[in-house]
Amino acid sequence: MEKKELLYEGKAKRVYCTDDSEKLIVSYKDDATAFNGLKKGSIAGKGIVNNRMSNLLMSRLEQAGIPTHFIEELNERETLVRRVSIVPLEVVVRNISAGSFSRLYGVEEGIRFAKPVIEFCYKNDALKDPLICSSAAEALGLASDEEIMSIKSYAQRVNIWLQQFWNKRGVTLVDFKLEFGRTADGLLILADEISPDTCRLWDSSTQEKLDKDRFRRDLGRVEEAYQEIMRRVLETF
Amino acid sequence: MEKKELLYEGKAKRVYCTDDSEKLIVSYKDDATAFNGLKKGSIAGKGIVNNRMSNLLMSRLEQAGIPTHFIEELNERETLVRRVSIVPLEVVVRNISAGSFSRLYGVEEGIRFAKPVIEFCYKNDALKDPLICSSAAEALGLASDEEIMSIKSYAQRVNIWLQQFWNKRGVTLVDFKLEFGRTADGLLILADEISPDTCRLWDSSTQEKLDKDRFRRDLGRVEEAYQEIMRRVLETF
Repeated sequence: MEKKELLYEGKAKRVYCTDDSEKLIVSYKDDATAFNGLKKGSIAGKGIVNNRMSNLLMSRLEQAGIPTHFIEELNERETLVRRVSIVPLEVVVRNISAGSFSRLYGVEEGIRFAKPVIEFCYKNDALKDPLICSSAAEALGLASDEEIMSIKSYAQRVNIWLQQFWNKRGVTLVDFKLEFGRTADGLLILADEISPDTCRLWDSSTQEKLDKDRFRRDLGRVEEAYQEIMRRVLETF
Repeated sequence: MEKKELLYEGKAKRVYCTDDSEKLIVSYKDDATAFNGLKKGSIAGKGIVNNRMSNLLMSRLEQAGIPTHFIEELNERETLVRRVSIVPLEVVVRNISAGSFSRLYGVEEGIRFAKPVIEFCYKNDALKDPLICSSAAEALGLASDEEIMSIKSYAQRVNIWLQQFWNKRGVTLVDFKLEFGRTADGLLILADEISPDTCRLWDSSTQEKLDKDRFRRDLGRVEEAYQEIMRRVLETF
């Protein structure tokens, strides 16, 4: 399958059309942004890590019964995926307090919740992706009641599966962001990516951050963290 | 029942202890604040309107099966209520887009929703009462899962009852804020107030605002709006 015209360029990915109107090619860049685009930089090799990790996780989730957009890895940075129209909700699942949650609600990082927190943000750069409750998302027509229930159910199942996956590799899944999309025939499937850009991953023994927070917070050894987390994924895959 | 020591002074009310540890006296002030205390002023007669209106509405809601803190009106500004510990959630019910909803999500005011929106804000002045989703409120221990379900159910029922009440009086209920509390014996009841300070009320024919937005937005005729809305309440009560 060959890349045709560029359909969309995001902060970390380019998306291309193909000969098949129902399939797209995603190409992962090394570019990194944070704080709604205020901080910009590059993480060498990030695109390769994110592409391969996301594909490995999505193909395993697919086997576990979660429908995803993943079709086939084309090369180290490019993947063939099902074309979807993205549901404009960022679905954030939190097992442990961190990041914006800690800032917004004045609680320290590292508190494990009795039950996972599921939050939605309205995917809208101009509005700075504001937090939104389910009934408001429905009122604005961002997703139907039925879609919101499906999304919450999938998010819970992905969380259980990913926690087990990472636990076996000495990694604590703190929180992560998912995006869902609708195929042309109306199927709701998991889209976007699952990677150190979209997950908080802490070493279970040392609590060392192995994710994009190293870039956001200038913690150093950013490339090394991406390589280390990839090594853990492949070790026992 | 006599006022004893001042227990708490808020932006618009003082709360006093009484001889009975399970009962408090609420005293309504004319003071008005907006934008988390940034704007301050006074609305002559507001305390009287809010006290009387809130009592009338709470006593009717009580008859309709919603448990409330209301016991007895003592005088035009003071009311005896059941003592509760307030659940630190502001429960916002929206039938039509307005205010912070319109600003946050970039939609114009006046859009009627197919179903009411129910939002929670974490009642915390230092954090500026941030929006919070149900699962986060539960994770932070602000309310239990069971309490959150009860609160949502009560809020829906209060909305249906209030919409009918205001419709008969030529007033459109745009949105409103409720607070709930727990009695010493663990009962969840409606507390705080229901007034033009806590509701958006538009004249159904002219769309004229008959609520605190006249103060927030310097629309003039603020006192008159409070008197007009009180007149409508009493007219056919």
